[in-house]
Amino acid sequence: DEGHLGAISRIINGIPGSEAAMFLESLPGDKRYQVWELIDESCRGEVLVSLHDEVRDSLIEHLDTDELVDATRDLDLDDMADIIVDLPEEVSNELMLSMDKTSRDMLHQVLSYPEDSAGGLMNPDVLRVRTDVNVDVVLRYLRFRENIPKPIGDLFAVGRKGHYKGRVPLETLLACDPKTPIRDIVDEDAPAIMDTTHASEVAQDFEHNDWISAPVINEKNQLIGRITIDDVVDVIREEAERSVMRMAGLDEEGDMFAPIISASKRRAVWLGVNLLTVLLAAFAIGFFEDTIKKVAALAVLMPIVASMGGIAGSQTLTLMIRGMATGQVGSGNIRNLLNREVMIGVINSFVWAIILSIVIVAWYKDVEMGIVIALALVVNLIAGALAGVLVPVFLRRLSIDPAIAGGVVLTTVTDIVGYVSFLGFGTWILLG
Amino acid sequence: DEGHLGAISRIINGIPGSEAAMFLESLPGDKRYQVWELIDESCRGEVLVSLHDEVRDSLIEHLDTDELVDATRDLDLDDMADIIVDLPEEVSNELMLSMDKTSRDMLHQVLSYPEDSAGGLMNPDVLRVRTDVNVDVVLRYLRFRENIPKPIGDLFAVGRKGHYKGRVPLETLLACDPKTPIRDIVDEDAPAIMDTTHASEVAQDFEHNDWISAPVINEKNQLIGRITIDDVVDVIREEAERSVMRMAGLDEEGDMFAPIISASKRRAVWLGVNLLTVLLAAFAIGFFEDTIKKVAALAVLMPIVASMGGIAGSQTLTLMIRGMATGQVGSGNIRNLLNREVMIGVINSFVWAIILSIVIVAWYKDVEMGIVIALALVVNLIAGALAGVLVPVFLRRLSIDPAIAGGVVLTTVTDIVGYVSFLGFGTWILLG
Repeated sequence: DEGHLGAISRIINGIPGSEAAMFLESLPGDKRYQVWELIDESCRGEVLVSLHDEVRDSLIEHLDTDELVDATRDLDLDDMADIIVDLPEEVSNELMLSMDKTSRDMLHQVLSYPEDSAGGLMNPDVLRVRTDVNVDVVLRYLRFRENIPKPIGDLFAVGRKGHYKGRVPLETLLACDPKTPIRDIVDEDAPAIMDTTHASEVAQDFEHNDWISAPVINEKNQLIGRITIDDVVDVIREEAERSVMRMAGLDEEGDMFAPIISASKRRAVWLGVNLLTVLLAAFAIGFFEDTIKKVAALAVLMPIVASMGGIAGSQTLTLMIRGMATGQVGSGNIRNLLNREVMIGVINSFVWAIILSIVIVAWYKDVEMGIVIALALVVNLIAGALAGVLVPVFLRRLSIDPAIAGGVVLTTVTDIVGYVSFLGFGTWILLG
Repeated sequence: DEGHLGAISRIINGIPGSEAAMFLESLPGDKRYQVWELIDESCRGEVLVSLHDEVRDSLIEHLDTDELVDATRDLDLDDMADIIVDLPEEVSNELMLSMDKTSRDMLHQVLSYPEDSAGGLMNPDVLRVRTDVNVDVVLRYLRFRENIPKPIGDLFAVGRKGHYKGRVPLETLLACDPKTPIRDIVDEDAPAIMDTTHASEVAQDFEHNDWISAPVINEKNQLIGRITIDDVVDVIREEAERSVMRMAGLDEEGDMFAPIISASKRRAVWLGVNLLTVLLAAFAIGFFEDTIKKVAALAVLMPIVASMGGIAGSQTLTLMIRGMATGQVGSGNIRNLLNREVMIGVINSFVWAIILSIVIVAWYKDVEMGIVIALALVVNLIAGALAGVLVPVFLRRLSIDPAIAGGVVLTTVTDIVGYVSFLGFGTWILLG
């Protein structure tokens, strides 16, 4: 009804575009278009930029050319570059035509870089200052300019041919005497980011240096744009999400909104990989079929040993993956870490081996069974610690991302070691 | 040797403090103090702030009072607040004495808040402007001030009693005529952050609004400090790491550097929780001991069904946890998601049931065994999808973080359903 729609309209136009986008995504598909219609034209561009690809695509299909052009016309160049490739050709052509030549050239420049590079992240609209003017001239220039890019951040000094000369810290600019020449306050040692640098490296640079903005240069050392912290925050958040998603074999983006068939396909691959590894484990168990026939209790208890090794190993693996990503784990301390993790494995395996064997002896009234499970648990927790340290090191040497493949390889090791050690000790002690 | 140390010294003093801290952490314990000695006194404070707690504590034990006071004296108030509680009392007393009264009062204020609240994150050193002055006065005030807090970001307007009046966007301040009164450019609708707001909520506000800095107010609406994006970036990174660590039952911080005994204790808890769940699964298998005695092949193959259900379920669970954290999953679309995930489960279970049963028939030359495993796989993949959606919803209703407990509960469900369905179908079809 009318009152209800009015309330939604007031709310959705009172929140930032990225929040409105999340609200749209939380709605069932058929309601999304209805709510979209309630968003003010001036806010629509930002909402569109913030939506996940799949949701955006399905919304774009609903909209006609005029509506899309009106929504996206006033976007910043970096946002425009993100979205223009997803728009129908008719719309992107019209947008290009409505721009002045400078903007069009700048847009083409951003589009010429991969999305996950510094060049793809940057906004070519950057404040350039010359070193031979003074602070007062720069402050006047800012007033004269129609709009200052937001956030303003530090300014960047360029030479005659557009070569990057250094960073002019905003705080210094505001603190010093207006007659000071820029030459005296420019930080010539401040590094610039190469256009081809990977986005995750850019994010690390921002984190370590506490930058608000950073200059981007090309191979000729020309200043071609700047990256601001708000874009970097998005990179950091996306990377964190991606690694969690990848660990579960999911596509990093939008799986939740993808059509059922394509989502099924992506996940099927991961299920297939897992099937291979668990078939390997089953094959190992197969060698002990005769033992199991004689002592079925071994089959009842064997998942315990395999599972505990997997848990202990994945604790070590998680630490290793994180440490390797942040650089805290390197060739200098791998040996120390290995010793440390094995020690922790030994301590915990003794603790739980004692408790578990008490439980099993009480359950099966069979002391030998308690000894079998205790021995197997100690072996598998140590195997888990070893695999947790060595699997990621080994994968990285093969240039495979340990965050993606580490879990699968690790549980294959702990499953097989767990089943084989438990059934092996069982055959030896109970039937030997 | 000398040349080697000189090279390390040049490198470590040429990189940001947070990178130097990571380098220290990557060294074995006994080398850390040696390298610390090579760091310039002016850089030591920042390095100390960036170290993980456990590494910092062990380093602090090595240092005497004078060294610590010299290293930390010039830190920003928010960094000082982070570190002062970890310093020996002698050092913190001396630091407090060396401050002027204003700084000391501000420090006490920050220390009065929990670390993960807006009050604990904020820096009380904030630029306050009055609304009855003009832009020129503000610019002069900035020049007159000895040092402008970095990054400068927007300024905040206050009333006579220090009440927060609104945000003065830095870009507007620089763009407008110096004679403009602040009153005309202050954004009175710009929200402030309450001192008690949780850090993760602060991070979301920054992300959605693309803020560089934001004002913090107390319950009397007085401006008491500001939070800047560099601190928020740390919060975002830490939260991402924490959720990955917690999923593996690890302490969020510093497990890699904690003493072996305390690390073992933390991990033992998680192993214990897992032991309970896997004992439950073993108990369920126990009901089928007679069946296993007759058909030992069932024991060989049963881990396959349990494992596949766990993988499929954790894919759904990962999506749900992420969607619930970002707000994309809400009561409005749970039913849609459930249908969707079950559909994906059905599709993938049929695909893999066919492939798996072909493999098993070829392996065991037994068509009935192929039928048993196919049926059980379909049941368990659908159970995985249902559990993947419902377990996090259920946990959240109990105010338990699904990112911590979700995986354990889910695999308990898929293990038990997997074993019981496979052994149940096996008893019924093969022995019935």
